[in-house]
Amino acid sequence: MSDPLQQHLRAALAAMPPTPLCVAFSGGPDSSALLHALAQLPDARARGLRALHVDHGLHVDSAAWARHAERFCATLGVPCDVLRVQVDGSGGVGLEAAAREARHAALAAHLREGEYLLFGHHRDDQVETVLLKLLRGAGPEGLGGMRALRAFGPGQLWRPLLGLPRTALLEYVAAHALDCIDDPSNADTQLARNRLRHEILPSLLRYWPQACDSILHSAALSRAAAEALRHDWLAAFDRLHDRVSGSLDMHGWLALLPALREPLLDHWLHARGLSAPSAAQRRQIERQCDARAGQLPCVRWAGTELHLWKARLWALPTRAPISRDWQQSWQGEPLALPDGGELSLTVPHTRLAEPLQMRLRHGGERIKPAGDPHTRELRDLFQQAQMPPWRREACPLLYLDDELIAVADLWASDRGVTLFAAAGALPRWRPGR
Amino acid sequence: MSDPLQQHLRAALAAMPPTPLCVAFSGGPDSSALLHALAQLPDARARGLRALHVDHGLHVDSAAWARHAERFCATLGVPCDVLRVQVDGSGGVGLEAAAREARHAALAAHLREGEYLLFGHHRDDQVETVLLKLLRGAGPEGLGGMRALRAFGPGQLWRPLLGLPRTALLEYVAAHALDCIDDPSNADTQLARNRLRHEILPSLLRYWPQACDSILHSAALSRAAAEALRHDWLAAFDRLHDRVSGSLDMHGWLALLPALREPLLDHWLHARGLSAPSAAQRRQIERQCDARAGQLPCVRWAGTELHLWKARLWALPTRAPISRDWQQSWQGEPLALPDGGELSLTVPHTRLAEPLQMRLRHGGERIKPAGDPHTRELRDLFQQAQMPPWRREACPLLYLDDELIAVADLWASDRGVTLFAAAGALPRWRPGR
Repeated sequence: MSDPLQQHLRAALAAMPPTPLCVAFSGGPDSSALLHALAQLPDARARGLRALHVDHGLHVDSAAWARHAERFCATLGVPCDVLRVQVDGSGGVGLEAAAREARHAALAAHLREGEYLLFGHHRDDQVETVLLKLLRGAGPEGLGGMRALRAFGPGQLWRPLLGLPRTALLEYVAAHALDCIDDPSNADTQLARNRLRHEILPSLLRYWPQACDSILHSAALSRAAAEALRHDWLAAFDRLHDRVSGSLDMHGWLALLPALREPLLDHWLHARGLSAPSAAQRRQIERQCDARAGQLPCVRWAGTELHLWKARLWALPTRAPISRDWQQSWQGEPLALPDGGELSLTVPHTRLAEPLQMRLRHGGERIKPAGDPHTRELRDLFQQAQMPPWRREACPLLYLDDELIAVADLWASDRGVTLFAAAGALPRWRPGR
Repeated sequence: MSDPLQQHLRAALAAMPPTPLCVAFSGGPDSSALLHALAQLPDARARGLRALHVDHGLHVDSAAWARHAERFCATLGVPCDVLRVQVDGSGGVGLEAAAREARHAALAAHLREGEYLLFGHHRDDQVETVLLKLLRGAGPEGLGGMRALRAFGPGQLWRPLLGLPRTALLEYVAAHALDCIDDPSNADTQLARNRLRHEILPSLLRYWPQACDSILHSAALSRAAAEALRHDWLAAFDRLHDRVSGSLDMHGWLALLPALREPLLDHWLHARGLSAPSAAQRRQIERQCDARAGQLPCVRWAGTELHLWKARLWALPTRAPISRDWQQSWQGEPLALPDGGELSLTVPHTRLAEPLQMRLRHGGERIKPAGDPHTRELRDLFQQAQMPPWRREACPLLYLDDELIAVADLWASDRGVTLFAAAGALPRWRPGR
């Protein structure tokens, strides 16, 4: 006659690969019940059950909580590590979100390869999460609620109790007289959740007794929809994205249904380490894509520039504007350029016979490339080479005695060729972006 | 200095094709404001503005409400038809749903080709609809709320006020001192909506002042997701569905993501006039698809049989079981078969020289088809012809003097061929399903 919570966990473990287990243990009732019940299961013990407790240092009692967590684990004979994190609430996301981010980062950093990190979230948490997502205007991904299993750091995050009501955990805590602390980690979130839990949900349940089941059913359908959409826009991304240039087919992107267009764009930008646009900025991009050719439109937001060029989208990190008057003497040593790029010689430690003056483009420059019978406008050379416009402004021009003798590593006059030949090395340009 | 509601409608009309307009006019405040405001707009008048009022006959005052509606329209100089409907609440869907169905059927029947039927639903209705859908466990399609524009009967259903709050309509009603009746059509729905409106939503708005905006944003994202998914499963349906046999590729269907698999199956069944399975029955189908070959599995639910055969899904209306002992004398006249099919001759009004006995299969039947050197087992002939198993039982076998001389219009012995040649016509079989 085993305990229902232990039975539930035994069945859940049996359906999972035999990975090591690590409980994210706050010391609150939910994770206390989870950890205590797991500690009774030989299968969990055999997987090397352990616990991690995060001390956010935000509460005067947080060190005492950490000691409590260590004692609780010691009594069970479960190894426990306390992770002390610094929470910086000045980042503009609020203390609560900062604490959550710091907590997750610490847990991910201490999770081992292939290990499952277990959270004590239950069915009522899930209902509250779905309602909170609705109250934040989320789409199917958010309305799908917390996932039972997902990638996390070097392992997986697993919520084995999502199917159980809160009462099941509280009954377990009472039955085993577990000594719990109030979960110290979620002050703000608790406030919103408490309002839902103590005011909104009881009203709903009075008239709609099946409300929780219904909300969870909506969540499951939303989750399935989000997964199907993700499958779709990942396939579209593979089709529209050019791995070499990192650019995106503009017309193909614009032709997507809105439910795919938005997550695909965000995915592309995040993969490039850039931030996603607001809804208004995205509409601006869409309008620009629709606009007539011949323009070189650009949409900017925090940290990101999105250029429309050659019927493709190009995303770049924002740079401070480059002064056209920048110049620098150069004799072959590796040199940082104002756009974050670099100019060097192909053979290290070689030096040019004479120092060159490096300048940026002002317009009207001309050069007679070696082997070319004609003097060329730099503008025409750039266009023929299909150099992106944002790169032309940052392209280093090399002067000797006020004569343009080379354009980065792209073109050199007879005089430039002679100079580099004498040094036994060619210029090499790495654009900043 | 035009009225805000009239301004809103003027702009909404300008963005729409110049179709005729018909207001679904209950006489309640929302549709009264909508109809009155439209009646002030020359653009609406020019489109031949008219109104339809449905009298459900469910309330002792309903005839008086209908007279009120006619008077209201007469005052505005807008033509109004009153549609009297019979609501049958015994169908098991509840009186409210039955009234809604009867109302929509009557409105669709009286809408004219290409006409827009306008409803007075507003922003607060939409918020309530989304919450009610969540409380019924709906997926993205339902969580997307009411659509602003959708096909309806021979025209379109249009909700031009979805962006306006209820207060805007009540202010209009007050400003123009409109004489309204309480909307009599939605007793039950009103009850649920009233609970949301007067209890749940005020609590939510106290803590989440932006709750309505957020819920509507979630709805818009859910709507977009539902549309992208619909696009997907319609494409998958075209790929998996065989128009000739009406069957569905089983493995292709099973390989779909769940969010596509379910609506595709329901769409296929509805297009064949059949009902959709429950979630449990759908899982049973999925398990059967996964099962080993060599079986002939069938899943049944109200009115529908779903057969798995030759790696395809076949959906049929349920028929009463056919007695194997059925028999019937036949001399060429069109004859109804027990499965709902028909046997006739290719040339009308011809008669066979002798009456044949029609029977169904018992097993072990043999026939020597004309031109075939061998006598064949009927079982082998059916298999070679790939006749679906559910059709074999209903296939009429034609006997003369207790000798099998023809199998429907598929095979005939020398004696059968001679008999039909003498009549100058061949048998023609239309299976019942």
